Amino acid sequence: MSLAKRLTAEFLGTFWLVLGGCGSAVLAAKFGGDGNPLGIGFVGVALAFGLTVLTGAYAFGHISGGHFNPAVSFGLWAGGRFPARDLAPYVIAQVLGGIVAGFILLNIAKGTGTFVIDPGAAGAFATNGYNELSPGGYDAASAFLTEVVLTAVFLLIIMGATHSRAPAGFAPIAIGLGLTLIHLISIPVTNTSVNPARSTGVAVFAGSGALGQLWLFWVAPILGGMIGGQIYKWLGKDD
Amino acid sequence: MSLAKRLTAEFLGTFWLVLGGCGSAVLAAKFGGDGNPLGIGFVGVALAFGLTVLTGAYAFGHISGGHFNPAVSFGLWAGGRFPARDLAPYVIAQVLGGIVAGFILLNIAKGTGTFVIDPGAAGAFATNGYNELSPGGYDAASAFLTEVVLTAVFLLIIMGATHSRAPAGFAPIAIGLGLTLIHLISIPVTNTSVNPARSTGVAVFAGSGALGQLWLFWVAPILGGMIGGQIYKWLGKDD
Amino acid sequence: MSLAKRLTAEFLGTFWLVLGGCGSAVLAAKFGGDGNPLGIGFVGVALAFGLTVLTGAYAFGHISGGHFNPAVSFGLWAGGRFPARDLAPYVIAQVLGGIVAGFILLNIAKGTGTFVIDPGAAGAFATNGYNELSPGGYDAASAFLTEVVLTAVFLLIIMGATHSRAPAGFAPIAIGLGLTLIHLISIPVTNTSVNPARSTGVAVFAGSGALGQLWLFWVAPILGGMIGGQIYKWLGKDD
Amino acid sequence: MSLAKRLTAEFLGTFWLVLGGCGSAVLAAKFGGDGNPLGIGFVGVALAFGLTVLTGAYAFGHISGGHFNPAVSFGLWAGGRFPARDLAPYVIAQVLGGIVAGFILLNIAKGTGTFVIDPGAAGAFATNGYNELSPGGYDAASAFLTEVVLTAVFLLIIMGATHSRAPAGFAPIAIGLGLTLIHLISIPVTNTSVNPARSTGVAVFAGSGALGQLWLFWVAPILGGMIGGQIYKWLGKDD
Repeated sequence: MSLAKRLTAEFLGTFWLVLGGCGSAVLAAKFGGDGNPLGIGFVGVALAFGLTVLTGAYAFGHISGGHFNPAVSFGLWAGGRFPARDLAPYVIAQVLGGIVAGFILLNIAKGTGTFVIDPGAAGAFATNGYNELSPGGYDAASAFLTEVVLTAVFLLIIMGATHSRAPAGFAPIAIGLGLTLIHLISIPVTNTSVNPARSTGVAVFAGSGALGQLWLFWVAPILGGMIGGQIYKWLGKDD
Repeated sequence: MSLAKRLTAEFLGTFWLVLGGCGSAVLAAKFGGDGNPLGIGFVGVALAFGLTVLTGAYAFGHISGGHFNPAVSFGLWAGGRFPARDLAPYVIAQVLGGIVAGFILLNIAKGTGTFVIDPGAAGAFATNGYNELSPGGYDAASAFLTEVVLTAVFLLIIMGATHSRAPAGFAPIAIGLGLTLIHLISIPVTNTSVNPARSTGVAVFAGSGALGQLWLFWVAPILGGMIGGQIYKWLGKDD
Repeated sequence: MSLAKRLTAEFLGTFWLVLGGCGSAVLAAKFGGDGNPLGIGFVGVALAFGLTVLTGAYAFGHISGGHFNPAVSFGLWAGGRFPARDLAPYVIAQVLGGIVAGFILLNIAKGTGTFVIDPGAAGAFATNGYNELSPGGYDAASAFLTEVVLTAVFLLIIMGATHSRAPAGFAPIAIGLGLTLIHLISIPVTNTSVNPARSTGVAVFAGSGALGQLWLFWVAPILGGMIGGQIYKWLGKDD
Repeated sequence: MSLAKRLTAEFLGTFWLVLGGCGSAVLAAKFGGDGNPLGIGFVGVALAFGLTVLTGAYAFGHISGGHFNPAVSFGLWAGGRFPARDLAPYVIAQVLGGIVAGFILLNIAKGTGTFVIDPGAAGAFATNGYNELSPGGYDAASAFLTEVVLTAVFLLIIMGATHSRAPAGFAPIAIGLGLTLIHLISIPVTNTSVNPARSTGVAVFAGSGALGQLWLFWVAPILGGMIGGQIYKWLGKDD
């Protein structure tokens, strides 16, 4: 495929990840107010994030590989599965897709006439955070550990499920539902990133609080992704 | 396959989509009244809509292609995957299937002896709506944007997951769970259509309010579907 | 396979369907009492029933065909996919599996020391019912219509997903999640049967109320199953 | 594969099972306090446990077989699918993986500054238990019966879904969602083990209560696993 089409696929896939995952969180998680079980809650948001990747990987995976996430691109590069020269364009396309999704989501959300983003509230506009911006009040060390470990396992799943000895065709199910699982664990800790483009796509609309903590959601996921990629590079080699 | 069998498959599949998706919303979403977590809520309804398509596509996809949705038929036509001459009969079969499902659902619902449709209530009888008929009170612009964007992505998923380079056999999973995801995002906005036959199948039993807003749930999904089809027509072409 | 092994597979699969589906309903649906969202609710029970069939069909489907349900056996016979001479032994093995599961479930439930079955309560011990024994108070006509239509569609899904032109290997996913979908729609109406062995397996432990209504959950599912089988017999034939 | 890589895969897979399954329970199940539907509840925890195995089996199954559970290793040995000489190293790797996961989870949980484990509370730190340590107050006989029967069926699913006549590639879906189903049934009874490594991985951090009951979650799952393995050994043999 041409680089233009591959980058378009990464743009669209990351757009979908942020629109669907963050969109479900912003529009539907707490529908009806606190205590109303009609809203989709964390289970629904976890399912939504995972299904963006499951569907995106079946739709675009055969075009671009279906990363939709800078930490995945870096992790696959560390794992020997992705060339260094494509890192920068992929990451740029992913971040742009995330930001455009954040912009569309903001315009949908404003349709109630009363929507506002409270930049001091944990998880506002589906942003990621720690300390006072963590949904459950987890500190930076806990947030960093969580993001590193979960992104590392995410890369193990991605490298393993797309390994030549793994059954063909199932990788989008394993990877997508793996992202659902990661959210089931860690929404209370950081609102779950494991994806710098996802964090950036909403943080740019949410004020200084989320932007000031954005560094962690670039450093920890990319570090974790590269650790996971390195481990599987050894583990998956025949011997 | 003969056209009669293909149209029967589209009729049955759309019947199932409306009976299952709207049926779960009408009968089970709020079981036990407000605040009762036994009811299936938006997560259950989202799952139900998606599973109608997942199951219908495995059951009937090899007969008719498994559209069950005029916006899908128009989108596939725009994407160069469906002949113009079949558009009208497919759409008619889909709308008939939706209306028969609405009729059966109404007769099941009446079995409590106390069931009534309040035509002024948002989402009454699982209808789609905007402004005062939007579950979350979203205006027409927000509703239109939501339906266009989500149907466009739905077509990207459908075109991509059924592409010759996508793994064979998995498309109904991607497409069905894609519809679940679309509902996880947008039930609060429009009660989620992305399907004019689904909207029509219940609106005809729900009074002037839903019927008066039905135009949006024909125009926006078909427009979005054709945009998605056009984009993938370019994206999926080898170069 | 020998008939002994096929009947053992049907016994085990129906045992699992009733233990898992009814077990989740009895033990976990309302955990913590009314209004406690920790319990799995109707969504969890719907998922449990579907997953018994998904897992059972992958485990035993290649031995017995994976019916686990007299209405499925009758429907496949009506659809020309199952020989009449195997109907009686299959149905007997299925009913025995259901009853043994009901017995084990009763003994697990008694482990709290306070468990009792209230035979006058709708859905007691996960039984099926109508009128005062319907969870939502639906009358017999509504219950009959619901069970006929949903079992008919269940057979369409089964016949379609196992058709020679359907993608191989995916049928247990379509059929299992189809049963989940059926429960998402109809737990409020009849507590969802579409399976006489499932209804019988718990009714025999739940007193005269459920036993007195058991006829409907034999007649309606088997009638619906045969209608669905007949329709697909025509629909799936090449022409 | 070398034994080192196989044991690393078992270590990582069991680490993931305990981090993901127990992590979702500890961090997210009751988010916001009693009665708050934002938390993932038993449905979310059941999904999380199942998805650890689904994802782990796709990632590591082609390296180690993907047991992640001493009861599975013993059951497969009883079923003639796993050599006795590998039992001890596999079980040790699994238990180590579970304990390391418990340790990481404890350090994440402490990030709120207020986290404590109450060793007298049922299900504290996601431990398994009976009597006063059973979430629903079930006695030891009920707990033992539940763990034996459910682990036996788990092995039936594993042996059946990986049988040479079962469709290739789908086993991780059947096995993972089978574990979800097992949790949907039995979290109220024992907090669900069916896996001695999972029980051990959190019990060692939770005080004398959970440790004193740990024997049951070694004996019952391994007994059940071996029963299931034996049954399928007969059932799956051609005749």
